[in-house]
Amino acid sequence: MSSEESQTMSSEESQTLYSDSAVEPPQNEQSKKAAKKEAAKQEKLRRRQEAAALASTVQSVSVEDDPLAANYGDVPILELQSKVDVRGWTEVGALTEALRDRYVVVHGRAQTIRAVGKNMAFVVVREKGFTIQCVVTAQPDVVSRQMVKYVAALSRESIVDIEGIVSVPNVPIKGASQQVEVQVRKLYCVNKAMPTLPINIEDAARSEADIEKALQAGEQLVRVNQDTRLNYRVLDLRTPANQGIFRIQSEVGNVFRQFLLSEGFVEIHTPKLIAGSSEGGAAVFRLDYKGQPACLAQSPQLHKQMAICGDFGRVFEIGPVFRAEDSYTHRHLCEFTGLDIEMEIRHYFEVMDIVDRLFVTMFDTLNKNCSKELEAVGRQYQFEPLKYLRQTLRLTFEEGIQMLKDAGVEVDPFGDLNTESERKLGQLVLEKYGTEFYILHRYPLAVRPFYTMPCYDNPAYSNSFDVFIRGEEIISGAQRVHVPELLAERAQACGIDVQTISTYIDSFRYGAPPHGGFGVGLERVVMLFCGLNNIRKTSLFPRDPLRIAP
Amino acid sequence: MSSEESQTMSSEESQTLYSDSAVEPPQNEQSKKAAKKEAAKQEKLRRRQEAAALASTVQSVSVEDDPLAANYGDVPILELQSKVDVRGWTEVGALTEALRDRYVVVHGRAQTIRAVGKNMAFVVVREKGFTIQCVVTAQPDVVSRQMVKYVAALSRESIVDIEGIVSVPNVPIKGASQQVEVQVRKLYCVNKAMPTLPINIEDAARSEADIEKALQAGEQLVRVNQDTRLNYRVLDLRTPANQGIFRIQSEVGNVFRQFLLSEGFVEIHTPKLIAGSSEGGAAVFRLDYKGQPACLAQSPQLHKQMAICGDFGRVFEIGPVFRAEDSYTHRHLCEFTGLDIEMEIRHYFEVMDIVDRLFVTMFDTLNKNCSKELEAVGRQYQFEPLKYLRQTLRLTFEEGIQMLKDAGVEVDPFGDLNTESERKLGQLVLEKYGTEFYILHRYPLAVRPFYTMPCYDNPAYSNSFDVFIRGEEIISGAQRVHVPELLAERAQACGIDVQTISTYIDSFRYGAPPHGGFGVGLERVVMLFCGLNNIRKTSLFPRDPLRIAP
Repeated sequence: MSSEESQTMSSEESQTLYSDSAVEPPQNEQSKKAAKKEAAKQEKLRRRQEAAALASTVQSVSVEDDPLAANYGDVPILELQSKVDVRGWTEVGALTEALRDRYVVVHGRAQTIRAVGKNMAFVVVREKGFTIQCVVTAQPDVVSRQMVKYVAALSRESIVDIEGIVSVPNVPIKGASQQVEVQVRKLYCVNKAMPTLPINIEDAARSEADIEKALQAGEQLVRVNQDTRLNYRVLDLRTPANQGIFRIQSEVGNVFRQFLLSEGFVEIHTPKLIAGSSEGGAAVFRLDYKGQPACLAQSPQLHKQMAICGDFGRVFEIGPVFRAEDSYTHRHLCEFTGLDIEMEIRHYFEVMDIVDRLFVTMFDTLNKNCSKELEAVGRQYQFEPLKYLRQTLRLTFEEGIQMLKDAGVEVDPFGDLNTESERKLGQLVLEKYGTEFYILHRYPLAVRPFYTMPCYDNPAYSNSFDVFIRGEEIISGAQRVHVPELLAERAQACGIDVQTISTYIDSFRYGAPPHGGFGVGLERVVMLFCGLNNIRKTSLFPRDPLRIAP
Repeated sequence: MSSEESQTMSSEESQTLYSDSAVEPPQNEQSKKAAKKEAAKQEKLRRRQEAAALASTVQSVSVEDDPLAANYGDVPILELQSKVDVRGWTEVGALTEALRDRYVVVHGRAQTIRAVGKNMAFVVVREKGFTIQCVVTAQPDVVSRQMVKYVAALSRESIVDIEGIVSVPNVPIKGASQQVEVQVRKLYCVNKAMPTLPINIEDAARSEADIEKALQAGEQLVRVNQDTRLNYRVLDLRTPANQGIFRIQSEVGNVFRQFLLSEGFVEIHTPKLIAGSSEGGAAVFRLDYKGQPACLAQSPQLHKQMAICGDFGRVFEIGPVFRAEDSYTHRHLCEFTGLDIEMEIRHYFEVMDIVDRLFVTMFDTLNKNCSKELEAVGRQYQFEPLKYLRQTLRLTFEEGIQMLKDAGVEVDPFGDLNTESERKLGQLVLEKYGTEFYILHRYPLAVRPFYTMPCYDNPAYSNSFDVFIRGEEIISGAQRVHVPELLAERAQACGIDVQTISTYIDSFRYGAPPHGGFGVGLERVVMLFCGLNNIRKTSLFPRDPLRIAP
């Protein structure tokens, strides 16, 4: 039953429909439009009849003889093997006072079940993050005591179909998002969860602040640790915060693509199985490829550059990248989703311009389109909205070093920044410029990959940049070396066996345009935008050195 | 120089700009708007001056003493290391009669170079699939003979910057897409291709029909075979057909995503590194994951279903899938891009409805948005536009078998269709229903994966379907078994060690909604929509049992 429908049907009508399958169609339509409407109505009636037929076959698990046994019970598996094409329910999120006294059909998970004596039970049903309190009250000829008993015995997280009448209680409803109740007439269990779950969703959804508050009041609430969450990720994912996180992740990918497509980029898919190591590092996963040694791509770097040599002009890719590093940090994974671009340029500022406009658009869009999701994340993991400027701040590496020096932090002017210095610089930049998102460019050549183009005016520096959110690096970008001789020279200088990357270098021998690009980790963008403390929170099924399941 | 700019500037003006860097700014602006315009103009002037400065540093390779040496030569690498922020050119595709007598700057590849005596040379420059004929004619004080010599010695596929005046010849131009010429004043080589390329783009772009036609006229033209193409893929990708194919591929992905997002799907990214084998097959790539045995996912099947158990309702993924099969066919790859969806349902028809609307939308959009690309593909690989219905035809497997039987083809009614029967059925369906795109559903259970839901009315069949384009299977979909006991039973019946997929089966113990979905190979969609004969043509860098490079 769709939500529109439920708004145009009185509770008597629907009760009649469900108690009697022989329904006379109304006869008063005349116009074509009315006929069409009628046909649609007939179709819905047919579906309802089928649903009623389904209901009538439901086996009651009630042990006693109950004349109302058809109104509740477990739906047998046969009925769920696409026997009836039933579609549409009133969404839990759509249940409001406007539906008072209407007969509705809802479905979702039985989040909590609570019996009050033998005559009453409450079921909070959750669907798409919204919850509704459903009340089962024993009444002669309507709801049997056996039905109350059946409902009270349901296991949490089971999937249920519920029919009933919307009512509006006099007092506010705690523990459910919707401020109406459903007075249950029928309740069927579509799929049973095991009686004792490894994690309770309530526990998994609790904020650290609430745990602390309760502790101060002398109550010890369950704190679900990270490993337990990840072991039972399917349950953990059901919390409002996780529902929000992965919807935000989906939107990040969407903005990335739409922005780039609108700028003339072509989406590509490069191979993850490659001969040799993609960036010359040691931390690659190796495997046997039909008798040939192979590895998993550490990035689409080489192939996206080859796509530029193949004349696509501007390309991007969204895909997995693999790092066999033994990094046990809050910000490293062995497999993550890389957002990569590569483009013909004459100056690396062109790449930084794309970063600037792309991410300002992304942050704007997230704040606008994902406010509910951000709120859900914030309820469990408190965070301040990201501070960013309309035009992204750009500092040279030298300027960054100077800011650190002025603040009393000594760092190697030709070395890379460590995590601590990055955080400190982020803090200084926030104080001085009021932004938590900025670009640091002209990095020392020595700390960048071999394919990075040196600066024209000082070969100790390079035409490269990193981008930071809340003091942590998320993006690395640069102009690339497009001249094969220089590329081979740089590879050698970085200790890479030129032979292993010969097809890569060769692709620049057929005429290569100057080009540049960047790569960014999807999980890091979401983690840092939401101020989360661990990248495992933003990976659906994270992979780290100790975890390859579920 | 942008194309707008070139339309508002006389050739004298620009020649002055390029020959003299000291340019007086105009003084007659008054309004704020004019001031802004002026500032933008000043910025452009500054860039032009920088460009002129760059040009003045260009080293001439001419051996003789030439007073006009600054007008041509190789751009030294230092100048290309982001020394000057030069942007914008008149795009080759924008060069038309409207620009007659204008001074323009273009860039691209020197596709063909032809000298006519010592005083003249022609260069066809290609950019984004468009080509322009550029003429270098020796003229006193304008173009030196040394410059003609320099140009004549350029290697094909080199990247060049060219400045000159647009002219309109009296006769149509063969061998270039644009019907105007550029009378060259300056020409710089940005990056040199090697003198002899392993493939000529002209040869790689030739259609089989043209080769045949020439042969009948007694001329033997070069035919570039598939392996050579793939060995030098960077060159092969530059043909108009390949430029079209991968732009079409990008659009397929775009329509897939936009359609599903509009239907409430969430985009997810599941791990490719998994413990155990994803579908129980033998054809997996195995590797060592930090001391644990692991493999590459053969599909996102298990994890996308787990996402449904994690309450995302409707999910999709675009990502690589890995098959270690020894399939040496025109339609199998060891790595390809999977387009996958999974959704809560009550009937598998709901999944088929998504297939129907998604693909009709996709075909409509491709025909509308990619007409130029389809034309480019068709010029090299002739094909008829795909025939499809507004509402996709659905036949049961039994009906399909009957059609084959009626046509005298005997097939096992409970076995799978082989490639030959699939093609035959496609032909019969086309004749009878006028469509090359249709759904075949209710497949025999025995030929489907263990997680496929059997039919409620006959366990020899299943709630599953395949979808065909031009007689070849591209999509497999089904309702899944969501009951853990039945799932374990089915896995065992299919000879799978239940222990290896325990985390998968366990995820259904926490309450699992009935659900279904499908998977489709991106490369196959593009191949079959364009009527191509080999899937290697639609994979950017294909991977098959014999190929892991480039």
